[in-house]
Amino acid sequence: MKNTFGNVLTLTLFGESHGPAVGAVLDGLPPGLPVSADSIARRLARRRPYGPDATARREPDPFQILSGVYRDRTTGAPLAISIPNTDVRSQDYPYGPARPSHADYPAAIRYDGFQDPRGGGHFSGRLTAPIVAVTAILLDALAARGIRIATHILRCADVSDRPFAPSPADLAADFDLLESAPFPALSPSAADAMTSAILAAKADHDSVGGITQTAILGLPVGLGEPWFDSLESLLAHALFSLGGVKGIEFGDGFALAAMRGSQANDPLRADPSATPPVRALSNHAGGINGGLSNGMPILFQCAVKPTATIAISQPTIDLRTFQDTTIEAAGRHDPAIVRRIPPCIDALAALVLSDLLLLRSPSALFLDASRS
Amino acid sequence: MKNTFGNVLTLTLFGESHGPAVGAVLDGLPPGLPVSADSIARRLARRRPYGPDATARREPDPFQILSGVYRDRTTGAPLAISIPNTDVRSQDYPYGPARPSHADYPAAIRYDGFQDPRGGGHFSGRLTAPIVAVTAILLDALAARGIRIATHILRCADVSDRPFAPSPADLAADFDLLESAPFPALSPSAADAMTSAILAAKADHDSVGGITQTAILGLPVGLGEPWFDSLESLLAHALFSLGGVKGIEFGDGFALAAMRGSQANDPLRADPSATPPVRALSNHAGGINGGLSNGMPILFQCAVKPTATIAISQPTIDLRTFQDTTIEAAGRHDPAIVRRIPPCIDALAALVLSDLLLLRSPSALFLDASRS
Amino acid sequence: MKNTFGNVLTLTLFGESHGPAVGAVLDGLPPGLPVSADSIARRLARRRPYGPDATARREPDPFQILSGVYRDRTTGAPLAISIPNTDVRSQDYPYGPARPSHADYPAAIRYDGFQDPRGGGHFSGRLTAPIVAVTAILLDALAARGIRIATHILRCADVSDRPFAPSPADLAADFDLLESAPFPALSPSAADAMTSAILAAKADHDSVGGITQTAILGLPVGLGEPWFDSLESLLAHALFSLGGVKGIEFGDGFALAAMRGSQANDPLRADPSATPPVRALSNHAGGINGGLSNGMPILFQCAVKPTATIAISQPTIDLRTFQDTTIEAAGRHDPAIVRRIPPCIDALAALVLSDLLLLRSPSALFLDASRS
Amino acid sequence: MKNTFGNVLTLTLFGESHGPAVGAVLDGLPPGLPVSADSIARRLARRRPYGPDATARREPDPFQILSGVYRDRTTGAPLAISIPNTDVRSQDYPYGPARPSHADYPAAIRYDGFQDPRGGGHFSGRLTAPIVAVTAILLDALAARGIRIATHILRCADVSDRPFAPSPADLAADFDLLESAPFPALSPSAADAMTSAILAAKADHDSVGGITQTAILGLPVGLGEPWFDSLESLLAHALFSLGGVKGIEFGDGFALAAMRGSQANDPLRADPSATPPVRALSNHAGGINGGLSNGMPILFQCAVKPTATIAISQPTIDLRTFQDTTIEAAGRHDPAIVRRIPPCIDALAALVLSDLLLLRSPSALFLDASRS
Repeated sequence: MKNTFGNVLTLTLFGESHGPAVGAVLDGLPPGLPVSADSIARRLARRRPYGPDATARREPDPFQILSGVYRDRTTGAPLAISIPNTDVRSQDYPYGPARPSHADYPAAIRYDGFQDPRGGGHFSGRLTAPIVAVTAILLDALAARGIRIATHILRCADVSDRPFAPSPADLAADFDLLESAPFPALSPSAADAMTSAILAAKADHDSVGGITQTAILGLPVGLGEPWFDSLESLLAHALFSLGGVKGIEFGDGFALAAMRGSQANDPLRADPSATPPVRALSNHAGGINGGLSNGMPILFQCAVKPTATIAISQPTIDLRTFQDTTIEAAGRHDPAIVRRIPPCIDALAALVLSDLLLLRSPSALFLDASRS
Repeated sequence: MKNTFGNVLTLTLFGESHGPAVGAVLDGLPPGLPVSADSIARRLARRRPYGPDATARREPDPFQILSGVYRDRTTGAPLAISIPNTDVRSQDYPYGPARPSHADYPAAIRYDGFQDPRGGGHFSGRLTAPIVAVTAILLDALAARGIRIATHILRCADVSDRPFAPSPADLAADFDLLESAPFPALSPSAADAMTSAILAAKADHDSVGGITQTAILGLPVGLGEPWFDSLESLLAHALFSLGGVKGIEFGDGFALAAMRGSQANDPLRADPSATPPVRALSNHAGGINGGLSNGMPILFQCAVKPTATIAISQPTIDLRTFQDTTIEAAGRHDPAIVRRIPPCIDALAALVLSDLLLLRSPSALFLDASRS
Repeated sequence: MKNTFGNVLTLTLFGESHGPAVGAVLDGLPPGLPVSADSIARRLARRRPYGPDATARREPDPFQILSGVYRDRTTGAPLAISIPNTDVRSQDYPYGPARPSHADYPAAIRYDGFQDPRGGGHFSGRLTAPIVAVTAILLDALAARGIRIATHILRCADVSDRPFAPSPADLAADFDLLESAPFPALSPSAADAMTSAILAAKADHDSVGGITQTAILGLPVGLGEPWFDSLESLLAHALFSLGGVKGIEFGDGFALAAMRGSQANDPLRADPSATPPVRALSNHAGGINGGLSNGMPILFQCAVKPTATIAISQPTIDLRTFQDTTIEAAGRHDPAIVRRIPPCIDALAALVLSDLLLLRSPSALFLDASRS
Repeated sequence: MKNTFGNVLTLTLFGESHGPAVGAVLDGLPPGLPVSADSIARRLARRRPYGPDATARREPDPFQILSGVYRDRTTGAPLAISIPNTDVRSQDYPYGPARPSHADYPAAIRYDGFQDPRGGGHFSGRLTAPIVAVTAILLDALAARGIRIATHILRCADVSDRPFAPSPADLAADFDLLESAPFPALSPSAADAMTSAILAAKADHDSVGGITQTAILGLPVGLGEPWFDSLESLLAHALFSLGGVKGIEFGDGFALAAMRGSQANDPLRADPSATPPVRALSNHAGGINGGLSNGMPILFQCAVKPTATIAISQPTIDLRTFQDTTIEAAGRHDPAIVRRIPPCIDALAALVLSDLLLLRSPSALFLDASRS
């Protein structure tokens, strides 16, 4: 397994769904960054299931900061956060039938039957909680220097939200809107229709998928480490760690395939109001050329598959005998991963950007850290 | 910059388009793997531009093996291959106007004007030649143990090829077909129509994009290192290093977003003819669950943007002054990156798979290496 | 900071001396390794101060396994162990005077005053506890396949122990002897004299240094990854992480400098009883040639400086003002780091060896892991 | 094998003694650093054997810069340097008898007989040439910002040189002295006596060992990344890659073992002339506390074993049969590795320091890089 990610800022993940705790260690942080327990709690709350459309599993997420913080500032030593698992009901996960399209079957082969099968073990979506917790200070630090990240659900089942506004000014308004929105959609009517679609799937014991759209504003020009740590490479690497993500496209992505170069190119113009004094007239590339940020907003979409665990009977095999059987999942599951994934995407994007910024300049994350 | 990729099998890339040479070092190879100069030359030939649809730049690619081979076998020491740059015409690349949607502008900011601007410098597609050369022995080694990789152009401009056959047996026939096909398409008529579309764009001084589809056959179950080195993460990381790739989806990818779980899941059945004795009844997931290979063929699609460098006049800025100007590219360029990218995708996929196989078992690549 | 070490088996360290907990995450473990809480407790007990020669700080080390274990076996997911800090007396560590020859001063500059100053913070020797805890299963796994590691104190103050026996058979007897010895010395009289020397220094409010000798038995031939991950490189890298280690030599080490090649070389002979059937007639090289193990016992010595924190008044500067002052340390400290370092050396050596073995063959650590 | 070293500045090594070329790729360089072919040639000349005490192999070292340089400045892309092997006489190295205390035997086991046996193959000291070549620009860049590195032979056979002067001012004079000295010793009479001792060993068909001492001046306070990338850890890791190095000690090293804390500690004093305004009154620690540089000169010693390859008959085994035989080496070899190792130590130290400086601040190596 490989549970450490990052070049100079590294996140190490541990835990299983029904073990004593899940947690993460973030190493390589500059000293002096403010650490706000409120901010961590708020990020965790955005990830937490709630409302009639989500899993019934209650996750109060009472996180513990184990190290790396002194007098509400980072010390420069590793920040470790642990989240105990409290509300676990292992009897819902008898070892035997593999859930189709879940890690159950390949993990049983790979780990030779020794994997923790309860609730998906280390493959559980529960592991995203420490990712969200430990990166909250990165999102705060990025915001303090004008770099904002936000994700909304562009499509859920057959319902579409409007895409992010193209201009930086309107995009900032969209960010403000999302921060106070109870559902991660730009249009309130889309939010309502998506909620209805999720509830309809749930009523059918089924699940739905979706597409997220993420925007990043305020990034300096030239971020990325080509060839192999291009900005697209690192973002995709991090985001494909999330179990439900099955596709990523930057800017116009797959639609670029049908364009000619004269349509797809983003012409450049002098713009004295920008730093450096240049802007593009369009943003088909999603803010990235040659693996480097180009000063335009970063834009990307993720395809999120429907939750694999559903309460409808499906043909499968028994992991103990490899004989045919059926499964009708009994555990508590979200009918829509896409509903809870936006804060996880923001968290991993913050990790990638912070790592790249620190690689360029260790003071990049460090705006106002005078001891108070 | 970050020009080394891989965990235990690492590829290190060097070179610029118009410098003395481009090259790569592949370290971590097991000793005793056969090294065939013919195989390297054949892989390079598939990447080389030819025909009326490609760049007029002649690249004979006279590669030199600098180290790592003794008596036609790998020694276990790093394999280094250098390809001298011979046919360079730097006067085609006056430093000044930035090519829109190319690395020119962000690289000039990032490298503070010190980057080699000739032919895109280190950002040139020419750098894919050593990637293809140095991974040829990996493709041979994988094939020797029954793991095959192939990529065709699923779409180019407005022309579509048929997708890979779903069954492993038919897929093997598709692989054979592609190996002898002069154009990387499964359907000869699609190949002709795509060639026409590329020539039409060229006649208009423009370029076209496309979508590739890649299949991998014969992979053992359980390959991947979740969370952060999931099979999807590593493949996406490697492939987004290629300048023209703007999107990747696995299996049904973005189409999964519109499905319900009951449609998207791949049910499992006992199958005594398989090892382990299990197969899935469908392959919406593209052969990957929870970041691990599941025994079905791996399937993914890449969105390739149209070549950014076109001979049509475009608004841009001058890199020396940041003032408005126009550019009408004079160099020799492919009107379709997608036409030459398949062997590059195969090369990087071979690197990722070999690295993961070696991580699980150093003898994984080593089928029959007795000294002859 | 860089708190992750290892290639495919990685240890990530976190915690501060007086924070909530210290801990470690060990990732890349094969599934199915036995995990014995008794073994972990026994290793921790060997590291724990006791007797009149040690610090008065009571460290009951009630470790918690947070993840990676299911039914007393490793799952293949990260093994995380946390050890809460209970007996902390921060008033002993007023921020101000820097302890000479301690990390206090350079850390204050490096971390800009944000480091946790209590008890040395992240630089405390307390951080070795989780290293010892998390690697206990590695020492068990290595022992199960015949690889044993042991360290004794070769010299403490002006007292010398006898060196390890040169022959593998006698060396095995030395290992047995050390396992049951209350003090890590081969000669009981040396143990007594060393204890007396430590107590004498303590009575003088001073501290003593020493030299450890480590032997490794049963290693296969050819372990190491030259050039840059030679066996000596990796062991030295790991061991110089321990604050008190100021020198390392392999085999005859510094004494080799005065020899001629004809004296220093270890001639080889056929030996049908060995695997492979070769042995060396001497072991000046400490079992390593060209960075690779050669089948002879690995032997190395570490120079351990006297504990920097002493209760004698010393000139120093105040970290808040950079003005002259004096310090007479009041905290509880070991008068001899060398007394407690042997289990830490064994722990880090086990990490290095396990990593290299897994790199060569993931089944290398896996002797008998059938589910029971 | 692992032939890449470094965190953000990575050196990748390739080549064999009798293959087409040896070379290195240095990646992660800031753009704009001056590249002087003269400086590279001068560094290579210091490593080259000459005089009656060295190997008769002529190594003109006609290096080629393959990439990474444009208009005599680094571009930010990888710097690749290749040095063709010209004067090779492979008949001197018949495959068969293993040279005692050389990599021959463990490499034959490890690489299963596929290693290149000619001249030691990838294990040859010849591989240090590209290390010296590619790091020359780092030594220049460090010197430009006041950081100097120098190594002399403190002991060779039974002859001792005086140690480096303790005060920074006198140490700078020692550096100047070494730069123009034909033999790397501070005392001319020691240089003469060492030369005589080397020649005497050569006349006896034997070899001699020695001890080097290295000093680093001008390093900022706080360099190092504890725990696992302490300054001592990284230097030791790099230096133990050199085949002949069998021991490393920092400051008083092994002598510290016999001291009490009150003797070994380096008291601190306010010093307005320093930056920060602090200095230590002694330097037993060799300029490193807790893994971090403390502002005093860095001092370390390396034990270098006598050359293993000697022309005296020695018992050994045949690598093809594992039967007893003898060897009387016929190739051309240095009778003293220690004579040629100082520029290699300086090269690797420059790599470690540059990597750590870049990790703290990418502009750290970048003093005056305005385009001229």
